[in-house]
Amino acid sequence: MRLQIRCDLTFEITVPTPFVLMLRPRSGAQQWIAREEYKFEPNVAAYEFTDSYGNLCQRLIAPAGIFEVHTNAEVITMDSVDQAPGAPFTEVSHLPDEVLGYLLPSRFCESDRFGQMANEITAGHLLGYDQVKAIETWLKQNIRFEPSDSDMLLSATEINERGWGVCRDLSHVGISLCRSLAIPARMVVGYLYNLDPMELHAWFEAYVAGRWYTFDATQAELKGGYVAIGYGRDAADVAIYNQFGPPARILTQSAQVERV
Amino acid sequence: MRLQIRCDLTFEITVPTPFVLMLRPRSGAQQWIAREEYKFEPNVAAYEFTDSYGNLCQRLIAPAGIFEVHTNAEVITMDSVDQAPGAPFTEVSHLPDEVLGYLLPSRFCESDRFGQMANEITAGHLLGYDQVKAIETWLKQNIRFEPSDSDMLLSATEINERGWGVCRDLSHVGISLCRSLAIPARMVVGYLYNLDPMELHAWFEAYVAGRWYTFDATQAELKGGYVAIGYGRDAADVAIYNQFGPPARILTQSAQVERV
Amino acid sequence: MRLQIRCDLTFEITVPTPFVLMLRPRSGAQQWIAREEYKFEPNVAAYEFTDSYGNLCQRLIAPAGIFEVHTNAEVITMDSVDQAPGAPFTEVSHLPDEVLGYLLPSRFCESDRFGQMANEITAGHLLGYDQVKAIETWLKQNIRFEPSDSDMLLSATEINERGWGVCRDLSHVGISLCRSLAIPARMVVGYLYNLDPMELHAWFEAYVAGRWYTFDATQAELKGGYVAIGYGRDAADVAIYNQFGPPARILTQSAQVERV
Amino acid sequence: MRLQIRCDLTFEITVPTPFVLMLRPRSGAQQWIAREEYKFEPNVAAYEFTDSYGNLCQRLIAPAGIFEVHTNAEVITMDSVDQAPGAPFTEVSHLPDEVLGYLLPSRFCESDRFGQMANEITAGHLLGYDQVKAIETWLKQNIRFEPSDSDMLLSATEINERGWGVCRDLSHVGISLCRSLAIPARMVVGYLYNLDPMELHAWFEAYVAGRWYTFDATQAELKGGYVAIGYGRDAADVAIYNQFGPPARILTQSAQVERV
Repeated sequence: MRLQIRCDLTFEITVPTPFVLMLRPRSGAQQWIAREEYKFEPNVAAYEFTDSYGNLCQRLIAPAGIFEVHTNAEVITMDSVDQAPGAPFTEVSHLPDEVLGYLLPSRFCESDRFGQMANEITAGHLLGYDQVKAIETWLKQNIRFEPSDSDMLLSATEINERGWGVCRDLSHVGISLCRSLAIPARMVVGYLYNLDPMELHAWFEAYVAGRWYTFDATQAELKGGYVAIGYGRDAADVAIYNQFGPPARILTQSAQVERV
Repeated sequence: MRLQIRCDLTFEITVPTPFVLMLRPRSGAQQWIAREEYKFEPNVAAYEFTDSYGNLCQRLIAPAGIFEVHTNAEVITMDSVDQAPGAPFTEVSHLPDEVLGYLLPSRFCESDRFGQMANEITAGHLLGYDQVKAIETWLKQNIRFEPSDSDMLLSATEINERGWGVCRDLSHVGISLCRSLAIPARMVVGYLYNLDPMELHAWFEAYVAGRWYTFDATQAELKGGYVAIGYGRDAADVAIYNQFGPPARILTQSAQVERV
Repeated sequence: MRLQIRCDLTFEITVPTPFVLMLRPRSGAQQWIAREEYKFEPNVAAYEFTDSYGNLCQRLIAPAGIFEVHTNAEVITMDSVDQAPGAPFTEVSHLPDEVLGYLLPSRFCESDRFGQMANEITAGHLLGYDQVKAIETWLKQNIRFEPSDSDMLLSATEINERGWGVCRDLSHVGISLCRSLAIPARMVVGYLYNLDPMELHAWFEAYVAGRWYTFDATQAELKGGYVAIGYGRDAADVAIYNQFGPPARILTQSAQVERV
Repeated sequence: MRLQIRCDLTFEITVPTPFVLMLRPRSGAQQWIAREEYKFEPNVAAYEFTDSYGNLCQRLIAPAGIFEVHTNAEVITMDSVDQAPGAPFTEVSHLPDEVLGYLLPSRFCESDRFGQMANEITAGHLLGYDQVKAIETWLKQNIRFEPSDSDMLLSATEINERGWGVCRDLSHVGISLCRSLAIPARMVVGYLYNLDPMELHAWFEAYVAGRWYTFDATQAELKGGYVAIGYGRDAADVAIYNQFGPPARILTQSAQVERV
C-alpha cells in the first residue's frame, strides 16, 4: 500500500526554546520511505541524530514567535498486518540481547504490578501470540477507547483504574500486561490509514516466536496501513516533540494519511 | 583508594530460571578494576553482553536447587568525590546526544510531575550544580533515610508521599527533581566504603557543566570510596539481578567493602 | 546554500543479486535534508539499517533484468567550508573514544607506511590544522587529479607510486598521511556543487582542535556546497553500492547537483 | 577446560606516550572469565572503553622509564571447537546487519583481489563450511607457518607472494579468501592452550550456517583451549597495543597458558 502521510505543527514560542523532534519516519523492515519532506517555518538550523532505539531525532532551537514544523512523506507499507495465532512464546534465555530491555517496567508501563491481572486475562491461552491476542481482546472490552485529548499523561495503572484512554493509554496497559508475562513489548508511534478521527496514532508490538508482531486495541480488526515514526519503551521515549524551558504553546497539530 | 569489594548471593530455585545479572564492575573514567573474580555454585554456562548503557550483563539459566553467585574485585577508585559549587547548568542544546535520554521520565522517576516542587526547592540557587546540591540537601532534610529492606519498589512520587526510603528511593526522588529542571540525572548502583550498615548502595549523578557529578543524600558528607557496578535511568535499569519465571527465593545477599 | 542533488544508476542483472546501497544522505551537523526521494525500477522490497559509522544503508535483492535506482534530494548545506589555520593538534589522549578508530590503517590507506613521508611534507608546520593543509597542498602539487574512471581500486601506496588518481585516490593518500601523524582522518563520499565534470565526489576530513575539518585536494580552493552521503575509514566503507554474486553490469551512473 | 592465561609486557619509554591496549579478555558466548587481574608498574590512571567490535580497550599515558603491563586470568573455555562439515553458506541477504562489514576488504585483507584464487581453491566443495575448510587446508599446504617475529606487518597479497608467515599472516590470507566468496570472516587474537612455542596467537572465524566458526591453519587439527581477547576485521583492529608518538621500545613480551 502506498500512502501519503503528513504532520503539521504550529507553536507559539515566547523565548528561544530547545526542541527534540521525532517526526522523520525511517525505512525499515516493514516500510520504505519513497519520498519525504521536512521543513521549518521560519527556517532554522537543525541537527539529526539516531537515538538508542534507532529512531531519527531532530534537535533545534525554536525562535520566539510562531514556529511551524511541516513533514510529509510517501511510504510503501504492508497491505496487511502479519498475524500468527499459535506462535509460541520465546523463552527469555533465547531472546536477543537488544530485546531484553523491553521486558523491564518503564515510566508509563509499571509491568511489575500487572502480574496477577495478566495471568487471569490470559488463563487458558497458549503461551505466546495467543496470550497477547487475549490481552488485546481484554483491552477492547475493558478499557474504553476515547480518542480525545488528555491533558496529562497517565500511566498504565492509572488508566486501568480510570477505565478509559486514548490509543497511547491502551498501548501502555497492553505493554504492561505483556511484560509481566515475560513477553517483550514496545510502543510504536506513527500513522494509520483510515484512522477515525485522523490524528497521530500509537500501538504496540510484542515479541513472540522470534520476531515483533503488531497489536492495536483501538481497531475492530487489524488491517494494513501502519506507518511507524518511532519505537520505544513507552510514550516517554517516542514523544513526537520534547521541549525544554518555558512551555511553548501548541496552536495546531494535524496529521493526514491518504492513499496514493 | 584501593578497595576490596565482594557480593555474595544465594538463591533457592524451584525450576530452571533465566537470570540477567549485573554484578561485574567495569573499568571506566572513575575506577580501575585491578583484579576480579566471578563464579557460580554450581558452575553454569554464562554469557555476557553489554547493554545500551554500557553495563556488562551476565545471562544464565540457574538450575533448580541452591544456586550461589560470588563476585569480588579489587578496585582503584577516587579518594574523594569531585564537587563543583557554582558550576553552570548545561543548556539542553549543548547536551551530547547520548545524554538526552536522561532528561526523560522513567519507571521510578516521574519527573513530569516534579516541576513545581523542584522550582520551590531550588529557588534562589544558581542554575546548575548548586540546584542539584539544594536538592540533595532537601532530600536529607525531608526524606528520612531508612536502610531497611522494602518489599516493594516504590516510585519517586510514592516515596515523596511516604516520606522515607532506602538509598535507591532517595536517588529516585533526586533524579526526578533534577530532570524536571532539565538537568540530566541517572542512577548508579554499586558499593561505598564505610557504608553503615554495609550492603549494596545506590546514588545518583547529575550532568552539569559538561560532565557527570556524584550526589548522595544518604551520607552526611560526600567522601570518596564509590565503586560503580551499573548506570541507568533508574532502578529498573540497574537491578543487580532480574529473574524470569516462577520467582526464585533469595536466601542471602551480602556485600562487603574493605580497604586494601 | 540550498541544493538539489540526484543520482541515477542502471544495472543489467543476470541473476537475482543482493545489494547494499548507500545513497540516502542524512541530516547531520553540516546539512539538512529538506526533501528526498528514493525509488527502484522495478520496485522491490528494500530494508534500511544504520551501519557502525552512522550511515543509512539499504539492502535489497535486485531482480534479473534492467534494474534502476533513482535518488534525489533537496539539501540545505553550508555556504562555505570551515577552515582554521593554526588550530592545534588534538593529543591522542584527548580524542573521543569513537574517533580512535580513524587513526588505524585501513584497506586503501596504509598509514603504517607513510610516516617518514608525512614528516617530510609537514616539516616546519604547526602541529594540527596546518599539517593537514600542507598535506592537501602537497597532494595538489604531486598527485595529478584525473577525474577518469579507474577500473581497479588502488591503495594509497599504489597511487603514490603511480602519481595520479581520481578524487577517491587523492583522499586515500591524504588520509594515510594524516593518520601516520596521529591525526584521525576519514573518507567522505557525496556531492559537490559545481564539480567539473559532475559526478559523485569523495573528499576527506581530519580531526584537529576537537572537531572534524574538510579537506579536498581536487579543488583549487575550498568552497561550500558539499553534501555528504557516507563516512568511513576509506572507500571500502563508503561504496555507494556493494553487490554480491555474479557481477551485475552497471550501464549508467550519473550524478547532478543544482542550486535551488 | 579451565585455563590460567597471562601476558606480560615491558616497555622502555622515552617521553610520556599514549597507549591503547587490548588485553582484557571478556566473557562471551564461548568463554567465561572467572577471575582476572590487570595491573601497571608503575601504576597509572587508565580508562576503559568498548570499541565498535565490542572489545574492551584500555587507554593510558605511559610515563617515561620502564613501564610494565601485567595481565592474567582464569578462563573457562570450550574443550573442543565446534565443527560443521556440510553446513551451508548463509545467503548475503540473510546475514545480520552487523555481520555485513566482515565482507569488506580491510587493511591486511585485500579480499577484492582474491576472487579467482578462492574459486580455484574451493572448486568442487559445497558452498559454506566446506569451502572454508578447503581454504584452511590450502593454507596449511601452501603458506609455511613460521612462528618467528616479523618486523613489518605484511598484507595478505604480500604474504601470498612470499609464501610464509606467522599465525596472523595465515589468518589474513584465509580471511581474504573467505570474503572474496561472500563468506564473512574476522580475525581473533588471544591465547591457545599447548601452542608451541607459547606466545599470543591469532586465528580466524568464518560465518556460515548462521553463526561464527573457528578456523586455524597453524594447527594440525582443531582442538579446544582457545581464549579470545579481541575480534576485528584484521590485525589493524586487534593490536594488543597501539602507541602514539615516538616509538616506545618493547623489551619483553611473554604469554603463558596453563591448565588449572
